[in-house]
Amino acid sequence: MGIVLGANQYGKAETRVVRIVRDTPRHTIRDLNVSTALRGDFAAAHVDGDQAAVLPTDTQKNTAFAYAKRHGVSSPEDYALALSERLLEAAPAATGARVAVDEYAWERIQVDGTGHDHAFVRRGQEVRTATVGRTREAVAVESGFRDLVVLKSTGSEFKGFLRDEYTTLAEADDRILATSLDATWRHRADPEDWDASYAAVRALVMATFATTYSRALQETLYAMGRAVLEAHDDLAEISFSAPNKHHFLVDLAPFGLDNPGEVFVAADRPYGLIEATVTREEP
Amino acid sequence: MGIVLGANQYGKAETRVVRIVRDTPRHTIRDLNVSTALRGDFAAAHVDGDQAAVLPTDTQKNTAFAYAKRHGVSSPEDYALALSERLLEAAPAATGARVAVDEYAWERIQVDGTGHDHAFVRRGQEVRTATVGRTREAVAVESGFRDLVVLKSTGSEFKGFLRDEYTTLAEADDRILATSLDATWRHRADPEDWDASYAAVRALVMATFATTYSRALQETLYAMGRAVLEAHDDLAEISFSAPNKHHFLVDLAPFGLDNPGEVFVAADRPYGLIEATVTREEP
Amino acid sequence: MGIVLGANQYGKAETRVVRIVRDTPRHTIRDLNVSTALRGDFAAAHVDGDQAAVLPTDTQKNTAFAYAKRHGVSSPEDYALALSERLLEAAPAATGARVAVDEYAWERIQVDGTGHDHAFVRRGQEVRTATVGRTREAVAVESGFRDLVVLKSTGSEFKGFLRDEYTTLAEADDRILATSLDATWRHRADPEDWDASYAAVRALVMATFATTYSRALQETLYAMGRAVLEAHDDLAEISFSAPNKHHFLVDLAPFGLDNPGEVFVAADRPYGLIEATVTREEP
Amino acid sequence: MGIVLGANQYGKAETRVVRIVRDTPRHTIRDLNVSTALRGDFAAAHVDGDQAAVLPTDTQKNTAFAYAKRHGVSSPEDYALALSERLLEAAPAATGARVAVDEYAWERIQVDGTGHDHAFVRRGQEVRTATVGRTREAVAVESGFRDLVVLKSTGSEFKGFLRDEYTTLAEADDRILATSLDATWRHRADPEDWDASYAAVRALVMATFATTYSRALQETLYAMGRAVLEAHDDLAEISFSAPNKHHFLVDLAPFGLDNPGEVFVAADRPYGLIEATVTREEP
Repeated sequence: MGIVLGANQYGKAETRVVRIVRDTPRHTIRDLNVSTALRGDFAAAHVDGDQAAVLPTDTQKNTAFAYAKRHGVSSPEDYALALSERLLEAAPAATGARVAVDEYAWERIQVDGTGHDHAFVRRGQEVRTATVGRTREAVAVESGFRDLVVLKSTGSEFKGFLRDEYTTLAEADDRILATSLDATWRHRADPEDWDASYAAVRALVMATFATTYSRALQETLYAMGRAVLEAHDDLAEISFSAPNKHHFLVDLAPFGLDNPGEVFVAADRPYGLIEATVTREEP
Repeated sequence: MGIVLGANQYGKAETRVVRIVRDTPRHTIRDLNVSTALRGDFAAAHVDGDQAAVLPTDTQKNTAFAYAKRHGVSSPEDYALALSERLLEAAPAATGARVAVDEYAWERIQVDGTGHDHAFVRRGQEVRTATVGRTREAVAVESGFRDLVVLKSTGSEFKGFLRDEYTTLAEADDRILATSLDATWRHRADPEDWDASYAAVRALVMATFATTYSRALQETLYAMGRAVLEAHDDLAEISFSAPNKHHFLVDLAPFGLDNPGEVFVAADRPYGLIEATVTREEP
Repeated sequence: MGIVLGANQYGKAETRVVRIVRDTPRHTIRDLNVSTALRGDFAAAHVDGDQAAVLPTDTQKNTAFAYAKRHGVSSPEDYALALSERLLEAAPAATGARVAVDEYAWERIQVDGTGHDHAFVRRGQEVRTATVGRTREAVAVESGFRDLVVLKSTGSEFKGFLRDEYTTLAEADDRILATSLDATWRHRADPEDWDASYAAVRALVMATFATTYSRALQETLYAMGRAVLEAHDDLAEISFSAPNKHHFLVDLAPFGLDNPGEVFVAADRPYGLIEATVTREEP
Repeated sequence: MGIVLGANQYGKAETRVVRIVRDTPRHTIRDLNVSTALRGDFAAAHVDGDQAAVLPTDTQKNTAFAYAKRHGVSSPEDYALALSERLLEAAPAATGARVAVDEYAWERIQVDGTGHDHAFVRRGQEVRTATVGRTREAVAVESGFRDLVVLKSTGSEFKGFLRDEYTTLAEADDRILATSLDATWRHRADPEDWDASYAAVRALVMATFATTYSRALQETLYAMGRAVLEAHDDLAEISFSAPNKHHFLVDLAPFGLDNPGEVFVAADRPYGLIEATVTREEP
């Protein structure tokens, strides 16, 4: 039974592309972290050390910069679509290209109540993500975010769970629910405006988190996913990964103090990790 | 020449205290990372292993939690003032206590255009800081922030610098200026409202960054410090630490593209590091 | 077209279990970071908020600690096998359990040329990993490591690659090759001694890295994988993920100095990222 | 009362210099992270935006690379001494220069029981540090390390401490003592061999940690410092910063298991933080 090359891919990760649009005095900025990868018939590079089919990762980096100028960055999705197309064109041995973009958001610095023309402060909430997977036949776009940290100080319980001989957890009628949310969603059709689509999904996820009573983080994820798919016909599916960032009520009784949901310790590790996809039924 | 104990201190670092105020349905949250330290005559613990004078770091942690309830957290400064007083009271051998608080900001999740009562999203810009140093005779408060990431896409040059045989840097007429700003300021008198004072200083630092033409990051720091001291008589001094987060213009000429300040690579390391204090003249 | 729950799993991540064996004065230590997850029919928890089938993540954590005592940790693989079996037993709704263990290595502190009985220093090279995936029908074990940082100061070239209009990279006859290697391998049969098997694979990967002339990182990965499968009949497959940690030769010519492969700048980002699996031919 | 510039300094941080010595086929490697800073009369740059006295941080970076070739890196201390001297020479306005070097250690990959000529694996224990502070009149060298993670599984207690109304900690007869040790020491005279001096101090610190019964981390720090100063006449002083990385015994009684010092949870935060200097008596 011989030994052979299996799945493989290669590319350039974390190219930090910053694009300023300065056609008018009111500048705009798109701040991206771009990772590209190619897969296909690259066996010669692995087995024989022959690089003739290999588009260097350095060239992939150059292309990422050049396309920020040539094509521009109207949205991370649109940019990734163009870049992935170019990479397949440039590397005939490739059967697939994957372009993953993280976008860091900036907002204008406020001066006398107005956003400044060319001075910005990094908005530190979530990182926006866009991933394009492209083959010679098809293309798929995933939009999303990661590290959106949200918390509810009430409206969350955890009760009625399975118990075994290792169970010591008390039931909770009213607890803090906190998570650092990652989400990705797949499009059935490209939206007209990627930025508007992103903003709408993000806002709906947060509003649903806020307004839904939670009997478990699982229920909250499902509710958020359901709300998004109901409101956005053009989305096929949404997936969440959510660490349950435990906030434990501190026992202040030894100090003669009661603690009716007021003082918590925020724990680092371990954390619950809940992952769920909400999708549409097969027809 | 004998061997002796020199400077020493001990305490509990990074106690993650979360305080919810839920007296009404509209909750508020203060999310703190608290570090305490004591110094004084603790030689017996070091030299003889005798802990009789040592208030355990575990007790310091307990006190941090208890004071979040007993005293409350109207501001990180006010809380640190109370906690430091208690620690000196509890540890007779201590001559000084230091309480350093990081505060993570949250904002209300927007639902139908209104901030929700008990659901929050972490605002990810800067971390607010407050440090109280207290001895038996005196107390000093430093307010500040760290990791406020700001960027100007124009209005910055760097020219006319000293050159030697290792200098290769070209002069820059128009560059990106970006930094992740840390600042601390000392109070001559306690403000009536610590939160309002903080917000005013922070806003003024950012507005000055935005509106001041920069001939070097040094000049920008000085301008920000000057503006703050001019506007806030109750402040004695302000210090900045500012990494110059280099954004290098990418050479697109090999690809037949010009690049008039549009496409940059954001570099990680090395970075310039500029530190400056702006203070009041001795009388 | 209805909206339904898709793939989902939940568990406790990063439980930091430290197990000391102190049956004799010569202690041993196993220092683990344990993550467990269950998948199966947990739709009620998501859709109806009903937790009756949910074994809490807190219980999973308790079980991880209890099994470190009850079953012991003769190796991360053996421990993960036992823990995964227990979790499936405890959660009837689960169809699968996944236990992933990171192990941090310690070595004895040397005192007068001998390893001390109960004092240890963390050995900081790679993190050892073991992952057990178990269903009601089958079990699969993956061993591996991550973050093994290796470097060759010669014996590496990169030439003859595909060029397009965005290619500016010069060919390299003699460069530094450096990577932070992750590897995982699947077993066809359980080895008698998991620790010995791990040590042998790790040593062979490093020796092959050292002694193989590299015409690309791809070729090096393939050579390492081939060597491992040739030497270890009980392994089915090995996969690598290897960032190409670029070390660029610094141009010292402006300073009147030549630089024949002596002074390099170690770059952070971007980096090449090469991933490859070496496997056995289907029979 | 006017507003003036106070203390200030500037420089280039984290220049990643890798120096290969390849005069023979048996290469050696020094892997450095170099930070330089200048202070002095740089008021014009801050107040007037006049850079005529400012040696750019880019030039400081270039000099760091050039000196790795021109002067070489026989040790981080020796390199920092030379680099600091050059920086003062190049910047007439500077009154002081500070060069701080982190060194990452590599060891040879073992092939058939022998260390390879040009293939290395990163040794991941501590980071070695060297800091040179130089003025026009004097120079001071500090050697040290950080992140040396050590643990004792017995031989440590914590008892007889001060108690107040917030104290809940139980006395411990036999606990795990673990820390991630930082240390710096000042030289009264330059050693002949900086590398040998470093290795001797490091080994003695570890051996003392191993063999000293600990009644508190404070006592352990003092014992280590005392041992080093007693053995090394050429050292003036040594300082430690040591987080007490708590390992809490897990309560297994609810599961019918005893736990005589066998199963622990390694906690992240909060942690004790103990800092102490051991010095020589003033004559």
